[in-house]
Amino acid sequence: MNIKELGGEFQFINRIKKKSKNKNVIVDIGDDCAVTEYNEDSYHLYTTDMLVEGDHFSLDYFSPYQIGIKVMESNTSDIAAMGGKPVYSLISISLKEDTTVEFIDGVYNGINEICERYNFDLIGGDTTHGEKIVISLTLIGQVDKNKLKMRSDAEIGDLIVVSGPLGGSTAGLKLFLNNIDGFDNIKKYHTNPISEIKNLPKILPVAKAMEDVSDGLASEIRNICKMSKVGAKIFREKIPLNKGIKKSSSLLDDDPYDYALFGGEDFKLVYTVNKKDRHKIYGTVVGEIINGEKILLDGKELKNYGYDHFS
Amino acid sequence: MNIKELGGEFQFINRIKKKSKNKNVIVDIGDDCAVTEYNEDSYHLYTTDMLVEGDHFSLDYFSPYQIGIKVMESNTSDIAAMGGKPVYSLISISLKEDTTVEFIDGVYNGINEICERYNFDLIGGDTTHGEKIVISLTLIGQVDKNKLKMRSDAEIGDLIVVSGPLGGSTAGLKLFLNNIDGFDNIKKYHTNPISEIKNLPKILPVAKAMEDVSDGLASEIRNICKMSKVGAKIFREKIPLNKGIKKSSSLLDDDPYDYALFGGEDFKLVYTVNKKDRHKIYGTVVGEIINGEKILLDGKELKNYGYDHFS
Repeated sequence: MNIKELGGEFQFINRIKKKSKNKNVIVDIGDDCAVTEYNEDSYHLYTTDMLVEGDHFSLDYFSPYQIGIKVMESNTSDIAAMGGKPVYSLISISLKEDTTVEFIDGVYNGINEICERYNFDLIGGDTTHGEKIVISLTLIGQVDKNKLKMRSDAEIGDLIVVSGPLGGSTAGLKLFLNNIDGFDNIKKYHTNPISEIKNLPKILPVAKAMEDVSDGLASEIRNICKMSKVGAKIFREKIPLNKGIKKSSSLLDDDPYDYALFGGEDFKLVYTVNKKDRHKIYGTVVGEIINGEKILLDGKELKNYGYDHFS
Repeated sequence: MNIKELGGEFQFINRIKKKSKNKNVIVDIGDDCAVTEYNEDSYHLYTTDMLVEGDHFSLDYFSPYQIGIKVMESNTSDIAAMGGKPVYSLISISLKEDTTVEFIDGVYNGINEICERYNFDLIGGDTTHGEKIVISLTLIGQVDKNKLKMRSDAEIGDLIVVSGPLGGSTAGLKLFLNNIDGFDNIKKYHTNPISEIKNLPKILPVAKAMEDVSDGLASEIRNICKMSKVGAKIFREKIPLNKGIKKSSSLLDDDPYDYALFGGEDFKLVYTVNKKDRHKIYGTVVGEIINGEKILLDGKELKNYGYDHFS
């Protein structure tokens, strides 16, 4: 049986998951980050991502600088999803023999810009070569114990909130893939994503279960529901969309809400909030946590979810 | 200018190195691991490696289990080189669409075996797909502050010691590459390496500067000398060789000492020892630290060093 037949990435992670024996491991595989004891007041967070040329970024429309930005922000987003801030990073890169030094310097300019944006360090790495550029980043973060957010803390009656507009990354990708000129502001949603690290102070005081929108809103809400053993009802037209994507999606006969629901890589946060905190919400309410295990989109059960590398 | 012209991996790492601003970063890029403050008594160690199919392992002669073993032991070796023990690991893997579940289970059996061998946990990971199998491992270790070993602590007059026999990994690789049957014990040096974690208690009490032999003994001694601002004299015939490789290398008209000096991936430790501790040495003396910056092999300056991914 090959990976495709097994049914996708999520199942595969479950397959390899083993319960940690170390009592310092608070959360292992299954959330945005692993969580370990650090000191009396805080935990360490660990996340790792591998980006492959042609899959996660294309050299046709990503500048080296933008590749650096994207690899870093997609990982800071996982740290944000747990309520933390990045502290250290390690980067491994596989280069092609004809990769230029200018290319590398561009990638590292992007990486260093994000290190400075959030004030953390690149402390190690490995360089090798292959037939495609592959970048693997490990990010170590830190979170106050009382601020840790997990996927498993949603409760029936909670409101479901997204921290900002969605769909832009997929809108940009579609424009690139269809060779449509212009729309530079929309293409930037795809090439220059920004995680929610800086908005955390406005989100953390009311957030219960939380996750970042890396695989599409539908998929993230499903993850929260699975881990919290609840269901959800969400409403398509309540989802805030990035500016301009209604226009660009109509050119391609696409539904921009599909970009938000099933596209991914927007790196906003989706989180649940107790109704009594409704007035303190940062973002937009898109639905509510309900009893059961179904995800209802406009009252109809959702069967298909976000982008999955092997489905 | 491309990477090849720039002159190899070592220079490239220097190129991207930036001094960390965080006072908790004790050592950043440039040693086997990055070192950060952990608690009053100990540091955290961080190392990452990327292994690419066809370069670091071949599916022609590596079983999936052996790939798992190799990716883990090559990284535990970096932790050992700093005097520490592994605590947590994160693994990212790029699979091909036709990769079988049996293959993955084999890789993870190898990985889990090493986690059990040294009693540490796999706490996170990422799965994606590409045209080649690429595995990136990040290992987090811990070391008592008074046991930390760095490359930069060699002093003139120190003896240079290797902790065990060398050359076996390259001997095995050459047998595979030349399609020579038999010699299974030698091939295992290449496919089933074992790092020196378990021998550390015998090495740490006398070791000063230390590094693991991942790129060939000559290259490792050069690194120690560069970081310690000293030279070295070493002697070819003092180098201990793995059993049987004189015979296998003669079949291929190779010098087995070249395997040890320039081959790499033996994952033994090379370290320096004050002469007064000569009687406490675990391993074999292969030379001595001298004034200057030259590395002398049998009295002649060495100009070419170990395997380098881009030279």
